[in-house]
Amino acid sequence: MTITKLCVIGVGLIGGSLALALKKKGLCAEVVGYGRGLANLQQAVELGVIDRFETDLAAAVADASHIVVSVPLGQMATIFQQLQRHAPANAIITDVGSAKECVVIDARAHLGDKLAQFVPAHPIAGTEKSGACAAFPTLFENRKVIITPIAENSPAIIAEVSQLWQAAGASVVSMDVVHHDEVLAATSHLPHLLAYSLVDTLASMNERREVFEYAAGGFRDFTRIASSDPQMWHDICLANRDALLKVAQHFDEDLQKLIKALENQDSAEILRVFRRAKQARDDFMKIFT
Amino acid sequence: MTITKLCVIGVGLIGGSLALALKKKGLCAEVVGYGRGLANLQQAVELGVIDRFETDLAAAVADASHIVVSVPLGQMATIFQQLQRHAPANAIITDVGSAKECVVIDARAHLGDKLAQFVPAHPIAGTEKSGACAAFPTLFENRKVIITPIAENSPAIIAEVSQLWQAAGASVVSMDVVHHDEVLAATSHLPHLLAYSLVDTLASMNERREVFEYAAGGFRDFTRIASSDPQMWHDICLANRDALLKVAQHFDEDLQKLIKALENQDSAEILRVFRRAKQARDDFMKIFT
Repeated sequence: MTITKLCVIGVGLIGGSLALALKKKGLCAEVVGYGRGLANLQQAVELGVIDRFETDLAAAVADASHIVVSVPLGQMATIFQQLQRHAPANAIITDVGSAKECVVIDARAHLGDKLAQFVPAHPIAGTEKSGACAAFPTLFENRKVIITPIAENSPAIIAEVSQLWQAAGASVVSMDVVHHDEVLAATSHLPHLLAYSLVDTLASMNERREVFEYAAGGFRDFTRIASSDPQMWHDICLANRDALLKVAQHFDEDLQKLIKALENQDSAEILRVFRRAKQARDDFMKIFT
Repeated sequence: MTITKLCVIGVGLIGGSLALALKKKGLCAEVVGYGRGLANLQQAVELGVIDRFETDLAAAVADASHIVVSVPLGQMATIFQQLQRHAPANAIITDVGSAKECVVIDARAHLGDKLAQFVPAHPIAGTEKSGACAAFPTLFENRKVIITPIAENSPAIIAEVSQLWQAAGASVVSMDVVHHDEVLAATSHLPHLLAYSLVDTLASMNERREVFEYAAGGFRDFTRIASSDPQMWHDICLANRDALLKVAQHFDEDLQKLIKALENQDSAEILRVFRRAKQARDDFMKIFT
């Protein structure tokens, strides 16, 4: 794989970390950033995340061999419109969006004759931090990247995008786009919704200050994802609305049953739920580690 | 402070860690464990958490200068009944229960003439692990212990129990018992209820295996507390039922509003909740760290 010029559109945690990972491996001759925030781009250069930046997208992608679109989901359509006009005809294009059906819809609507060059991807990696300053080269090591290829992709381009992510340290798996969105709604989007909702509920309480003051490590971990970028997660929740609503309503029904069991002092039912959950979570940790 | 004999009733993560912390400081001449699980007690001796154990409570507490009751909340009453009969008349007694009004009720019902010797305490520290093998001496360092003294406690005995926890590395704060239970319902008991409920919901899904397989670090942290001891948290949730129900219902109403906002594609409302939550959580981290 030869990356003569990597263009990172949106130099944040994910796009920046990919650039750092590929540069560290000596695979990128040049990394050019593009984005709306000038201060962030300047900082990205200072931190060595990108070599230089452009504020004009046509200039940024000119002669790029690889283009990574790592902007919030709400901005994908606008970027795709510009890529249709300006992306080189042989550039390999991928993205990092956390929901994929919406990205495919935007791509089909706007990428035109560049559509076949685009392989949608979702790296299952991240932290609650944002911006180029949060990027680090090992973010993708031992993590998964889910690609959701479209019918127009050739095996060769799918292989190239897979190699790009593998070079950054990730293992790549392919998944149907609708299935991806259902799985991620459950495992990522719903937990974020719950974490934001819980912290907001607690912050509205009279005992607000003490609630946070006497919180322990469990609370800190449980609410960590509520420190994630609100705009980005707003976009994700709306973009994956149908799948998220389905699993959120399922969760809420189960929660109401559990609250009812508590009301009724249904000791056996509470213990049953807690035990099943512990077993499932302990099993999950065996897969994860 | 002189601890001629510390008796740990229930040698788990919390009781065991207290023993280790005090032994490490050279403050305990002897640590004797008592509990129902023989294998756990034997392991506690092997690991140096306790010096020896007794399987008879009267023998365990004989001549003890300090007694720590660190059993699940559902077993407090039984232990207090035995302490009323067997605890030395000048022993200092404390506990580690995560809900405190129920403990005070049990103590008033069963401790009899030993009531004034008992100062209820709740160390805001722990991990999702259980048993003597999970204990470590630094668990309480830079953590808070909330004591909820009762009217019968003398200033001297309150000071002695405070010194015990301070010696283990904690800072001690005093709180009204009802207020403690309200604050902890919000900050600890509700998050556990939600984590158990979420993992149980996801484990019941058809995509169960993939849901866990494609989970990232955020999910691992969010659900860590669902690996906690189910029996212990069952006891806590039932023991603090009224306060937990109140905050759980408050949370569920807010969650339903957020789900409704998602249904209605109410972009502004979703962004408002997420932004408020991130701000509150970031503010909390400034207090915590």
